[in-house]
Amino acid sequence: MTDLIQMGKRAKQAAFALSQLSQQEKNHALALIAERLEAQQERILAENAKDIQAARENGLSESIIDRLLLTKERLTGIADDVRHVISLADPVGKIIDGGVLDSGLKLERIRTPLGVIGTIYEARPNVTIDVASLCLKTGNAVILRGGKETQHSNKILVEVVQNALQQAGLPEMAVQAITDPDRALVMELLHLDKYVDMIIPRGGAGLQALCRDNSSIPVIVGGIGVCHIFVEQSADQDRSLAVIENAKTQRPSTCNTVETLLVQESIAEEFLPKLARRLKTKEVKFHADSTALSILQGVSADVKPVTEQQLRNEWLTYDLNVVIVKGIEEAVEHIREYGSEHSESILTESQKLANQFVAQVDAAAVYVNASTRFTDGGQFGLGAEVAVSTQKLHARGPMGLEALTTYKWVCVGDYTSRA
Amino acid sequence: MTDLIQMGKRAKQAAFALSQLSQQEKNHALALIAERLEAQQERILAENAKDIQAARENGLSESIIDRLLLTKERLTGIADDVRHVISLADPVGKIIDGGVLDSGLKLERIRTPLGVIGTIYEARPNVTIDVASLCLKTGNAVILRGGKETQHSNKILVEVVQNALQQAGLPEMAVQAITDPDRALVMELLHLDKYVDMIIPRGGAGLQALCRDNSSIPVIVGGIGVCHIFVEQSADQDRSLAVIENAKTQRPSTCNTVETLLVQESIAEEFLPKLARRLKTKEVKFHADSTALSILQGVSADVKPVTEQQLRNEWLTYDLNVVIVKGIEEAVEHIREYGSEHSESILTESQKLANQFVAQVDAAAVYVNASTRFTDGGQFGLGAEVAVSTQKLHARGPMGLEALTTYKWVCVGDYTSRA
Repeated sequence: MTDLIQMGKRAKQAAFALSQLSQQEKNHALALIAERLEAQQERILAENAKDIQAARENGLSESIIDRLLLTKERLTGIADDVRHVISLADPVGKIIDGGVLDSGLKLERIRTPLGVIGTIYEARPNVTIDVASLCLKTGNAVILRGGKETQHSNKILVEVVQNALQQAGLPEMAVQAITDPDRALVMELLHLDKYVDMIIPRGGAGLQALCRDNSSIPVIVGGIGVCHIFVEQSADQDRSLAVIENAKTQRPSTCNTVETLLVQESIAEEFLPKLARRLKTKEVKFHADSTALSILQGVSADVKPVTEQQLRNEWLTYDLNVVIVKGIEEAVEHIREYGSEHSESILTESQKLANQFVAQVDAAAVYVNASTRFTDGGQFGLGAEVAVSTQKLHARGPMGLEALTTYKWVCVGDYTSRA
Repeated sequence: MTDLIQMGKRAKQAAFALSQLSQQEKNHALALIAERLEAQQERILAENAKDIQAARENGLSESIIDRLLLTKERLTGIADDVRHVISLADPVGKIIDGGVLDSGLKLERIRTPLGVIGTIYEARPNVTIDVASLCLKTGNAVILRGGKETQHSNKILVEVVQNALQQAGLPEMAVQAITDPDRALVMELLHLDKYVDMIIPRGGAGLQALCRDNSSIPVIVGGIGVCHIFVEQSADQDRSLAVIENAKTQRPSTCNTVETLLVQESIAEEFLPKLARRLKTKEVKFHADSTALSILQGVSADVKPVTEQQLRNEWLTYDLNVVIVKGIEEAVEHIREYGSEHSESILTESQKLANQFVAQVDAAAVYVNASTRFTDGGQFGLGAEVAVSTQKLHARGPMGLEALTTYKWVCVGDYTSRA
């Protein structure tokens, strides 16, 4: 039986030890983890094969099986990702700001680890190592709860990590996994506020809502992208086509993919046929409002009327909603109603309208003349990505290492009292 | 009947309008609020008198009645506080960081309002204006839920604010109050995640726990201070006495007051009698562990054995727990077990031990040779204080205007696609 309170206590104890480590000590442990992931390849792949077999027996789709699958190359890639984390700057200990107060107190605000992170994720064994290494780098302990489809893989991966921690002289309990597939444990984890400081759900809208609605621990909601591109009438149409193609088709399964195109009425008749021709080879399926439908039907075989519900869809496929708007006000209005505050873009030659769009659209990332696909920790220069937050507190948009830290106010006096 | 969904929709609509305002426009509205608070004194005091009468009829304590009471002087003070908020720098629009990415995208991270704030507080009518003015300054709409003891006062205060907003040409619904005392409305507010971005409870431990355990909206838990001072053996004892007296007696009802004194064993026999003599005139009552008890009994009339539960007490009175510890390890251990991660202090002449204490104690504010009473937005130079957070996400310790903002990533390209 999994004793979550016991896990929480151990994690908190480990977090205290981790918070006292130097960069060098943490990096040394990470190096050992990378080494062991490669050295223990055979054992890891054998355990992963059990998950793959179970997935086939349970009739899971090929795309899910592909996500579950580990290979020698993928394991090497995962080990290299750990080595990349070593190369990043450790935010812990950074002085954010400070000064001397009127009272004579010397005040500094200093970055510290958060403590214990809880992560709930789905069928991706690489997330196990990814999250563990980012938490370790920032001096946080972590409790991992992966999908039951990856239970054998997660178990061996965590064992490899714990062995590396032990070898490095660090507390093994810094990285723990709940491998028991009982779903009640998720609910229990969400109420472990005595020991866990932050919950990061990495998965679909259902998981995000479950965590948001039930957790007594602060939750980072994110990763759901109903993103829009608004083609304003002054936009360079040919160059716009390339941006839209990139945003929709470069990697449709990602949360920063565009799902709805908003086209200004005055250019719709000219622009939509070009768009249909451009996206034909990529087999993009259009879901169009009535005006767009009447234009697109002449040029594309793959067009259907869009439903209200589909406007709220995160397609994650080659499907694209197309909606005609009178102008920027209607575009902003549409995004406020249907967007998920992830990534929104305007294509325009007007500086004035670009500024208006940036000011009025409330989203983690707002683009002018660019693809929505850039919303990503790596692209934004953060070095790593813990998650993409679509909520507003603590961190918004791509979360790097800093989002795994908090701060303390350190005040040094000379037996100073408040007047 | 109070329709919370309707209130939420209106608040969100108002927040959109507020987010587009300049500093000047927001300050103009604040100036009108201050003016009207003074001009409408008679009406406000008449409504406040109803709350006071009800409080007396319901047998509320004199200290609560004093908190409820508004006078001409207090109203002038409240209006002056609003004028002080005008003088603060508006964090909205501030560029946090930015640069040019490899892709050629120009990236900036810019402060924006959070959107809609929900505040739940107890019997203090001044909080109504305080929170409303800080939210308005940062371009946020607010839904206020004060205690039922202040319902008449809150109603008239919000009416005055709304009239000022209207006069300024701003949406009245930027500041709304739930004046219906039905407690079910609090639970409903905590689930209004579609419209409300952050909940700030300002009140006791029960209210904090209620919000933390039930809200689907991010909550800033805070304001509960079980603060410690550790007197290490090398400390200057006479100067330490002054700091302890300040931390316990300067204003005992505040969350940054010290509640437990940890004294190193080796100096207990010498130090505790001095302490008892020093605090005698302030009528401090001691709750001591067995060793401290045997020392204090000889010198103080007011000493009782401390219970396990009292070590977790936020006394907010002239009561002080006294516990003897072997050394810094035991002091840190005690604070980890009983502290509320608010404010913790060490008194010592040892730089090494001071550093150890700062590194090992996990709290919003950690002090060396200073009173815990400094944990306060004003003292820390933040200009204002929305709340004191004792959780680790978004904001920790005293929260100034910046804690009422989030940011967006603004990315400008030249029809840029991701490679």
